[in-house]
Amino acid sequence: MADGLVTYHYRRSASRLTIGAHLFGVLAFILMLIWLLHYRGGIEYDSDNVDRVFNVHPFLMFCGFIFLVGEAMMVYKTVPVSHNGQKFFHMMLHLTAICVGIVGICAVFKFHDMINVEDVYSLHSWIGIGTFCLFGLQWLFGLFTFIVPQPSETKQSMLPWHICGGRALLYMAVCAALTGLMEKSASMQQKHTRENHLMNFTGLFILLFGVFVDLSVALARYV
Amino acid sequence: MADGLVTYHYRRSASRLTIGAHLFGVLAFILMLIWLLHYRGGIEYDSDNVDRVFNVHPFLMFCGFIFLVGEAMMVYKTVPVSHNGQKFFHMMLHLTAICVGIVGICAVFKFHDMINVEDVYSLHSWIGIGTFCLFGLQWLFGLFTFIVPQPSETKQSMLPWHICGGRALLYMAVCAALTGLMEKSASMQQKHTRENHLMNFTGLFILLFGVFVDLSVALARYV
Repeated sequence: MADGLVTYHYRRSASRLTIGAHLFGVLAFILMLIWLLHYRGGIEYDSDNVDRVFNVHPFLMFCGFIFLVGEAMMVYKTVPVSHNGQKFFHMMLHLTAICVGIVGICAVFKFHDMINVEDVYSLHSWIGIGTFCLFGLQWLFGLFTFIVPQPSETKQSMLPWHICGGRALLYMAVCAALTGLMEKSASMQQKHTRENHLMNFTGLFILLFGVFVDLSVALARYV
Repeated sequence: MADGLVTYHYRRSASRLTIGAHLFGVLAFILMLIWLLHYRGGIEYDSDNVDRVFNVHPFLMFCGFIFLVGEAMMVYKTVPVSHNGQKFFHMMLHLTAICVGIVGICAVFKFHDMINVEDVYSLHSWIGIGTFCLFGLQWLFGLFTFIVPQPSETKQSMLPWHICGGRALLYMAVCAALTGLMEKSASMQQKHTRENHLMNFTGLFILLFGVFVDLSVALARYV
């Protein structure tokens, strides 16, 4: 197979993977909304109902934070503007994701206060808070390396760290989401109920969203 | 910075990341052994004690399966033999991991039978079984593409899929392990106990093992 054909093959694959990532992301988004609105009583930050306050957390952490981060990572494949325009979208989507994430984390602290439960004891919370702090550092690292003017050699030598680190952080965020769903599901002690199946499919689609975003970014480096 | 210096920088980083991966893998291995032997009553497949039978599952799935898979992925950096020798180790370590994983999965089915609980209802089990089947397919794909003689163009065009797919599968296996630990931890309903902290650190080190294996493989592609 000629080199040109291999390149064409990978460019086409990367674009199909991007479509797959959108699909799984939107599916997870829809299933999570059905779960929170139909089974869990709705989503409201300023509520006296503790469940509605809690629900802000999974909603904003996936539908806001992880979904936006994934879309930000695929911007270089999906937004047909100049490279600098793509960089701007990439940075702004990440910034929006981080702001939404902060509100999402505040929601779960508020929920813990309302029911008098201790904070930050579970594996989910350890992974989640660690990952979120690293995301903040990665954003600052990206800002001072790729947005603030730097010699092109510096940018070039830092790019692999930025790309590989970003993909690892996406997986860490997916791990945080899945451990969170698992914690909630285990505490509800439901087994073969419709709600449990819905939560499992939501988790699977979140994982597949992460895998497809990762593959679309990683395979594109071989083009 | 000259290109040679960048290459040297990444080669050194990839080798440091490999050392980091070993370190976190061994730490997770030790913490899991302490957890299962000191807090959970030991590990034994042919036991009448259901807890000892259950403990075979986390032990073999991490200390056998995930740890061996990670080591197999780093073989091209860590085993100083010919390329064909490295391929052989890579294949054999994966095969060993899959065999150990089968015993580990059998252990949890045996445990469910002993306590009369249904199988395959949790998010952990869905991710775990899905990932394990995909690992089997990836091994067969690798065998028929890279071990059985094929034109070098075929190998070259399939290599990015094999590498990127393998890294994604490692993360999926890590997700399975972390949801499993989270499920167990949530069902035990312990909070700020020493055992819960030990389980959290085990989970964190499993995640860091996955991240460091991934980065050592991914950054090496930029060398």
